[in-house]
Amino acid sequence: MASDVATLVEAARDGDRGAIAKLISLVETGGEASFPAVAELFRHGGNAATVGMTGAPGSGKSTLTDKLIARIRRDGAEVGVLAIDPTSPFTGGAILGDRVRMQDHATDEGVFIRSMATRGHLGGLALATPQAVRVLDAAGKPWVIIETVGVGQVEVEVAGAADTTVVVVNPGWGDGVQANKAGLLEIADVLVVNKADRPGTADAVRDLTLMLDLAGDRDWCPPIVETVATESRGIDELWDAVLSHRDFLEQDGRLNRRREARLRDEVRAIVLERLHDRVDAVCEGDRFDALVARVVSRELDPYAAAAALLGKQ
Amino acid sequence: MASDVATLVEAARDGDRGAIAKLISLVETGGEASFPAVAELFRHGGNAATVGMTGAPGSGKSTLTDKLIARIRRDGAEVGVLAIDPTSPFTGGAILGDRVRMQDHATDEGVFIRSMATRGHLGGLALATPQAVRVLDAAGKPWVIIETVGVGQVEVEVAGAADTTVVVVNPGWGDGVQANKAGLLEIADVLVVNKADRPGTADAVRDLTLMLDLAGDRDWCPPIVETVATESRGIDELWDAVLSHRDFLEQDGRLNRRREARLRDEVRAIVLERLHDRVDAVCEGDRFDALVARVVSRELDPYAAAAALLGKQ
Repeated sequence: MASDVATLVEAARDGDRGAIAKLISLVETGGEASFPAVAELFRHGGNAATVGMTGAPGSGKSTLTDKLIARIRRDGAEVGVLAIDPTSPFTGGAILGDRVRMQDHATDEGVFIRSMATRGHLGGLALATPQAVRVLDAAGKPWVIIETVGVGQVEVEVAGAADTTVVVVNPGWGDGVQANKAGLLEIADVLVVNKADRPGTADAVRDLTLMLDLAGDRDWCPPIVETVATESRGIDELWDAVLSHRDFLEQDGRLNRRREARLRDEVRAIVLERLHDRVDAVCEGDRFDALVARVVSRELDPYAAAAALLGKQ
Repeated sequence: MASDVATLVEAARDGDRGAIAKLISLVETGGEASFPAVAELFRHGGNAATVGMTGAPGSGKSTLTDKLIARIRRDGAEVGVLAIDPTSPFTGGAILGDRVRMQDHATDEGVFIRSMATRGHLGGLALATPQAVRVLDAAGKPWVIIETVGVGQVEVEVAGAADTTVVVVNPGWGDGVQANKAGLLEIADVLVVNKADRPGTADAVRDLTLMLDLAGDRDWCPPIVETVATESRGIDELWDAVLSHRDFLEQDGRLNRRREARLRDEVRAIVLERLHDRVDAVCEGDRFDALVARVVSRELDPYAAAAALLGKQ
């Protein structure tokens, strides 16, 4: 079993697409069966730079991701993409034209695109995503893009856990304000006003600048990039902004501190998850029913029943 | 210690207001120190009928609660009130006029009003409220009103955990729709359109009727009562609706089934809470730091670190 995992990880490291896909499925499912794989992957990782792409549905972040892939490939670097956004063409949720365009990359051996299901409990996705990143990392992809829809706490968290987080908004009344409300500005390292050929672009940029000013001084002030993704405009500027942030991170041990903080959060989340599993296991079945029956008859109070279920802690 | 608690509960059962207040403080704080009190209170409870009052801030639910107290007192019954709504005059958040009016009941020995803090973690409130209800229950109050503001999942849960839940809306565009979105219609046993002297009352009633129809057949169809709380209009009708629902609950063992389901949820919530406390305890300190350091150096993967923290399960 463990040696199977070692073989699979070895194959993934050699670029075997089937092995990469199998490993992502394994860590996506999670649970005990995935632990040996995570352990093995973790040993071989830590090299990939991760970029989170997030924004409201329809903001064009999938098209931007598509163009970024092309930009990265122009430099010859390989790239892995995890699409967690159910509205993303990568996950098959968009119109045919988009989906067909994505196929371009499907024949490119240097690109590995994978959609992640948002099914199951919320905690599952937040835990599975870093493991899936580790598969692509161990497989030697120097860049991993994680695309999530910027609504919902978990999706925002997942995007925010990348080394560099790109938040995409559109011109138009209040889009920046909405992003701010959703907690997106807080996690943004790079801001993109996409569809910048539309009216209201200057206003959107001004709104974002104001909100960034109000947020106070930071070590890094997120640059605001204007793009028209459908016409490939502004993509080089966006990529330069990502690379600038990367340079910034690599100064003064910032990247290591950021990753350490993330690992702390991850270990904590895993502990919480495993304890939740224990709640599920403990709060069902005959023993639980019998204890509840004794509570109903007021023979036992709720705290005593909980203590009995948990055993001596 | 345990005998102190027994003495305190005995005093509360004899109507000692100081003892009631002390016990509520004790269970509100929660934790191990409160367990003996909960156990003792639980043995003496199960008789109070609970009424949840909820609605948006400004809907007039506090004034309705005030009038209901007077209505209940007209029949000579005692009543306990837990005000969890920070905008409620009972909790001191409203204008002086309201607060002064509340003082009427303060001199009435048959009324015990207590505000509950919403401070601390969310789970705390959801757990503390049933314990505070048990204090008033053990103290022999046949009616306990729990007033919460109907925004936020926990507040809705707390109100919905009453035997009878009254949801208050106002005339005006979309108020019923908002209540529906907030999950309030789902938990409503009685619906109140307060400020029914304002335009749009008929529309609000029609909206609510339609939404109830759309929700499908239920054993109990929530009556819709029109009130003008500030003028004491509709209060008898509201009280009759609460009593009708009470009669309904007492048929065919419905009340017992409802309470059993609630106790199941409560035991589960306590188990979850105690395990969360364990996460807090486990994910800090030198041992946690040392394990994270080993994860950072990739000597250990995050799952292995979590397993080490949790010990053999």
